[in-house]
Amino acid sequence: MKNSIKTIAFDADDTLWVNEPYFQEAEKEFCNLLEDYVPHELASKELLQTEIKNLNLYGYGVKGFVLCMIEAANQITANKAPLHLSNRIIAIGQELLQKPVILLDEVEHTLAQLKGKYQLIVATKGDLLDQKRKLIKSGLENYFHHIEIMSDKQTQDYTNLLQRISCAPQNFLMLGNSLKSDILPVLELGGFAGHIPYHVTWTHELHDERLQHIQFIELDKIGSILNHL
Amino acid sequence: MKNSIKTIAFDADDTLWVNEPYFQEAEKEFCNLLEDYVPHELASKELLQTEIKNLNLYGYGVKGFVLCMIEAANQITANKAPLHLSNRIIAIGQELLQKPVILLDEVEHTLAQLKGKYQLIVATKGDLLDQKRKLIKSGLENYFHHIEIMSDKQTQDYTNLLQRISCAPQNFLMLGNSLKSDILPVLELGGFAGHIPYHVTWTHELHDERLQHIQFIELDKIGSILNHL
Repeated sequence: MKNSIKTIAFDADDTLWVNEPYFQEAEKEFCNLLEDYVPHELASKELLQTEIKNLNLYGYGVKGFVLCMIEAANQITANKAPLHLSNRIIAIGQELLQKPVILLDEVEHTLAQLKGKYQLIVATKGDLLDQKRKLIKSGLENYFHHIEIMSDKQTQDYTNLLQRISCAPQNFLMLGNSLKSDILPVLELGGFAGHIPYHVTWTHELHDERLQHIQFIELDKIGSILNHL
Repeated sequence: MKNSIKTIAFDADDTLWVNEPYFQEAEKEFCNLLEDYVPHELASKELLQTEIKNLNLYGYGVKGFVLCMIEAANQITANKAPLHLSNRIIAIGQELLQKPVILLDEVEHTLAQLKGKYQLIVATKGDLLDQKRKLIKSGLENYFHHIEIMSDKQTQDYTNLLQRISCAPQNFLMLGNSLKSDILPVLELGGFAGHIPYHVTWTHELHDERLQHIQFIELDKIGSILNHL
């Protein structure tokens, strides 16, 4: 691997900065709002089902999440929610869109070490404007040659990305916290991938199998990639 | 102009295919839902104000539009909306995301004439997944070398785009229906721009001044660009 990598792509949410804990806080607030109707775990379950049902319509990101919270609240309360409920959910969403961007440990040091030696890019899912806002707030923008906000992270999406940046799979290393979105599709098309686990992962991104692959590296933290390059 | 243009960028909504009429239909339905509370024009006004207020949070596209309809409905009804209202608004949004893509006149013929002679790209605002969906549904994908879904269309956004596709402003021609988003910023950075008016334009995109500029062309329809190249 050492000699073939030219481009290193970083997932953003929960790889460069904190994200999922904010969504989990929002979900907790959502469950609190509905606790007169159903226990928390049932509210969470209904929300997840609504998100999965709408994923091909809304894609990833905060706006779709808020629309799903409203739809799930209507469903849970059989349209008997108190009138202020959708307002409160919209406010949760607007707060989510304005959260501070907190970098994860060693991120900036790692990028500083790699810059100049590799072409560094961001490859992330989510709402266009929201991901750009977070990148600007992060202060990391200048480390990156290219920012790709993707509507999905399946193999075909990575194929398109590699074409766009004129990079062969064997010269490409993807780093991220989701085995399903950041690792498996990249390995499938012949690239290298490094998994940096994060302490919480969205249920829909979970992947149970233990992975063994010659082009795969399991990392304990982002900075450990420096030992492999 | 004839000899300097290498790349032609097309706005998508209401330049390549029908869009604003769908939003106007949705807005009419929204006003119908609220007509027991306020006359249509007041509902429209409240919706527009809500959209402008939230534009820097939500950006452009259907999902933000739906969130604004719900927020405006709560505002208009002083949170006394009937309980099914937010459900109905969510359904309007989901219908909007599944509308057929209807190409405007001469679009395919014009692209077929230009392909191979110029690098053709799409430069559009909106939700990432929704714009990709429309492009695939349109059947036009193969005409384009590059698709850029932009969070905004200000001068800086075009500067970034040109950098991304390695194109100098004097080699760039942008075609679109919005003077504010497709024409003025491109002229400002030294590019060429052609305006193709569409019969309806979102109020927030309207621009009243009559434009005169040496690198500006007023077109009656998309096909007329062929006479200028």
